[in-house]
Amino acid sequence: MYTFAAPLGRALRIAADSCAVVSGDHRRTYAELGSRCRRLAGALRGLGLVPGDRVGVIGLNSDRYLELYLGVPAAGFVLAPVNSRLAAAEMRAILQDAGVRVLFTDGGYAGAVAERVVTMPGEYEDLISAADEVPLGEGVAEDDLAVLFYTSGTTGAAKGAMHSHRGLVSSGLHFMATWPFDRDTRWLVSSPMFHTGGTIAMMATVWSGGTHVMMPSFEPDLALDLIEREGVTHTLLVPTMLAAAASAQLSRPRDVSSLRYLSHGASPITTETLKRTRRAFPGAELLHVYGTTETTPITTLLPHEERILDTPRAGSCGQPAVGVDVRVIDASGAEVPPAVVGEIIVRSPSVMTGYWQKPEETAAVLAGDWYRTGDLGYQDEESYLYLVDRAKDMIVSGGESIYSTEVESALSSHPSVDEVAVFGVPDERWGEAVHAVVVCRTDVTADELIAHCRARIARFKVPKRIELRAEPLPKSAAGKILKRDLRDPYWATRQTRVGGA
Amino acid sequence: MYTFAAPLGRALRIAADSCAVVSGDHRRTYAELGSRCRRLAGALRGLGLVPGDRVGVIGLNSDRYLELYLGVPAAGFVLAPVNSRLAAAEMRAILQDAGVRVLFTDGGYAGAVAERVVTMPGEYEDLISAADEVPLGEGVAEDDLAVLFYTSGTTGAAKGAMHSHRGLVSSGLHFMATWPFDRDTRWLVSSPMFHTGGTIAMMATVWSGGTHVMMPSFEPDLALDLIEREGVTHTLLVPTMLAAAASAQLSRPRDVSSLRYLSHGASPITTETLKRTRRAFPGAELLHVYGTTETTPITTLLPHEERILDTPRAGSCGQPAVGVDVRVIDASGAEVPPAVVGEIIVRSPSVMTGYWQKPEETAAVLAGDWYRTGDLGYQDEESYLYLVDRAKDMIVSGGESIYSTEVESALSSHPSVDEVAVFGVPDERWGEAVHAVVVCRTDVTADELIAHCRARIARFKVPKRIELRAEPLPKSAAGKILKRDLRDPYWATRQTRVGGA
Repeated sequence: MYTFAAPLGRALRIAADSCAVVSGDHRRTYAELGSRCRRLAGALRGLGLVPGDRVGVIGLNSDRYLELYLGVPAAGFVLAPVNSRLAAAEMRAILQDAGVRVLFTDGGYAGAVAERVVTMPGEYEDLISAADEVPLGEGVAEDDLAVLFYTSGTTGAAKGAMHSHRGLVSSGLHFMATWPFDRDTRWLVSSPMFHTGGTIAMMATVWSGGTHVMMPSFEPDLALDLIEREGVTHTLLVPTMLAAAASAQLSRPRDVSSLRYLSHGASPITTETLKRTRRAFPGAELLHVYGTTETTPITTLLPHEERILDTPRAGSCGQPAVGVDVRVIDASGAEVPPAVVGEIIVRSPSVMTGYWQKPEETAAVLAGDWYRTGDLGYQDEESYLYLVDRAKDMIVSGGESIYSTEVESALSSHPSVDEVAVFGVPDERWGEAVHAVVVCRTDVTADELIAHCRARIARFKVPKRIELRAEPLPKSAAGKILKRDLRDPYWATRQTRVGGA
Repeated sequence: MYTFAAPLGRALRIAADSCAVVSGDHRRTYAELGSRCRRLAGALRGLGLVPGDRVGVIGLNSDRYLELYLGVPAAGFVLAPVNSRLAAAEMRAILQDAGVRVLFTDGGYAGAVAERVVTMPGEYEDLISAADEVPLGEGVAEDDLAVLFYTSGTTGAAKGAMHSHRGLVSSGLHFMATWPFDRDTRWLVSSPMFHTGGTIAMMATVWSGGTHVMMPSFEPDLALDLIEREGVTHTLLVPTMLAAAASAQLSRPRDVSSLRYLSHGASPITTETLKRTRRAFPGAELLHVYGTTETTPITTLLPHEERILDTPRAGSCGQPAVGVDVRVIDASGAEVPPAVVGEIIVRSPSVMTGYWQKPEETAAVLAGDWYRTGDLGYQDEESYLYLVDRAKDMIVSGGESIYSTEVESALSSHPSVDEVAVFGVPDERWGEAVHAVVVCRTDVTADELIAHCRARIARFKVPKRIELRAEPLPKSAAGKILKRDLRDPYWATRQTRVGGA
């Protein structure tokens, strides 16, 4: 039975004395992790929570975050991780939408939306040390909701992608069917755990009795030091992290010979970055992962990417993962032949079951067993997938997905703004940078508009550059702004491969 | 959706032009295999079969057997493979029990139990070449019955272990979580496909777009020639096969450098055999598999066994596979501590859902989610499992499971036989040999009793030796024959490790 208690239960039996997690100065065995998760379950029951109740978390990656990720669903509750980089109003909206009863936070949030806010580490430690151990997994069914991963929406309102126990556990199996995990695995948690990229390998690592090496937030030198000190074997980095880590390693080499499995995803990456990565980490297999929050995210995988960097397939995101069906369809819903661009759809037990309390948004993307990603792409004759565009008008900057409409809404709310178009432009550091073209009715500076945005949306969503224009923006016959005409000149000179999560 | 159509569908998309199967002179791509499976589905519908109907097969391993194994369940029917070594009466009983409507046979069976008997290859080829292709997987649900694997019962009546689509497909994932499978995998099908050991890797191989190299029935020189000629990378052998293949390789070496993954299971194996295997196949990782027909059979796995041959754990069957829970319980059903012997119980989506139309036998072994194996063993503190005895009084000879009670029934039906005890004794070639101790009321020879058995039970179940005694057999106070007193002297001088499937 594929519930969260299964991987943890196996680890407790095969590797109780193995190191489960290294986080700063803490090292905890599986036996300790298991005991702490059982006490967390006891504490949450003690707070009056009943099965299915939502528990929020806002914080940096840590051993306690791992306990919440494993323990809250295993105890029958639902975890709602919140992006710690969001603006306070955005966090509040998510906590309200999820109906979070208890919120754990390491200080990144001070609002009072939940009935109970538990700060970490202090109050958290007090809470679990006072609690009794409660068995995990009892009364939990495979199809029960386990985690709500929030994703920004086109309208600005974040949506909670509902992942069942089976969805997340089977996603771990799908990863293990391509990459080896065992008790000697030491997975560096580099990406934030409030994204599916941060938790991508946790089921696989736990099931194998391997070790999590937590990085609170990504810093290239810290990553290299942890790889060397902890003998890290596997990790996933978004391209901006990959580029920074490769540069740091090339300028001051550490012993990174333990790193044998290096995956990346979530953003466009250039072949140059991959080649530099290869020079910096010559012993590591490269794996490209494509997926979305709604698909857990493992959707397509390109193992041994280092072997094909000089072939046309280097531009691909790989083939459907084991356990995942991927098709490309036309506007009528019919599958298109190889090499023809269409919308990418996905079917798997690992796909979300819908958006939390949003039946309309759910119906718009889930039809039967299939999830419509909104991404456009094509497959070759062996189902290697190539992304060509994001139908949803999304910008991926530093691994964060940003809907341009959300930024446009923030800008439009300024009284001087008349017309606005927001899109991504190539950026050496962030992959894409948020770029705005604005026509104003009254005199206003770009800095004023940026300050206006900062008060409303997360810092990472705020445009890096605002271009003020006097003349009206180009429009279609129907009056729709021709955003592509504005955007294309920035991309014309670049050969970029795209992979998003 | 873990149905048979999923692995095949993936192979058709990622590896349509790859070789799916090599069988004698035939080589077929996945595109060809897929087309033939779809025509097989069309042919079965044309014969009037409706979803859930049973289709039997009696034959040696072949490309057509693979088509039946994949295509019959994917088309919504249920496959019932029958042991081709059984006596005609035993085959008939299974065909009747399963209610087989259409039987495919390569000539090993001439009875007329099914409505329709289709001989292979001739009639099979005629049937599918005349049929239209029908899409696979439509209307098939994960929990639908896919395959009935028959296992001999203590009462002599074979029982059909019911395996769902999800059960067999998830078992493939559990295997892939420990061993790597990819498009370069070339799996040698050495064990007969009417046992779960013969089909153990088919889901994993198909899902990866790898190649099946079929061996009609095991011969050591043929196995070595196929490994060399086809570049076989993986296989599973029962210990008798392993010993024969190692001897053949040591006496006349072939190039077996492609063989990197060599698994074994189903019978006791000595450390000497493992060491000889290591000498014969020095490039291969050894993997011990323990399981039963009811558990698909992947239950515990001992990867890299070659690294521990000189340690106490060489006597173990390994740790619970990913996705499989294993416990050892006492007579009250409570879990015992490490090192204490008890009955081995198993829980997994890959466990059978019950015995076909045998609610009492099912209830005797399935309680809640747990399956009682009837095997006795203990676990160490890291859940390595050690088998100590078979509670069900089973003999495993050359990879075949034989219930001693079944052989005792056959002997007892002879008018001269008064008392009888059947058990396994150590045998260099077969692992265990069937041994009978008989007390007769009138004069009869061992040869006469053997001839009597041959007319009633499969050749492999017939005692290799019959010991005639004049005095009554030792009995307990309750009058039960003390079989262990008779059996133990044969085993006293041997240090044997036991692993059964």
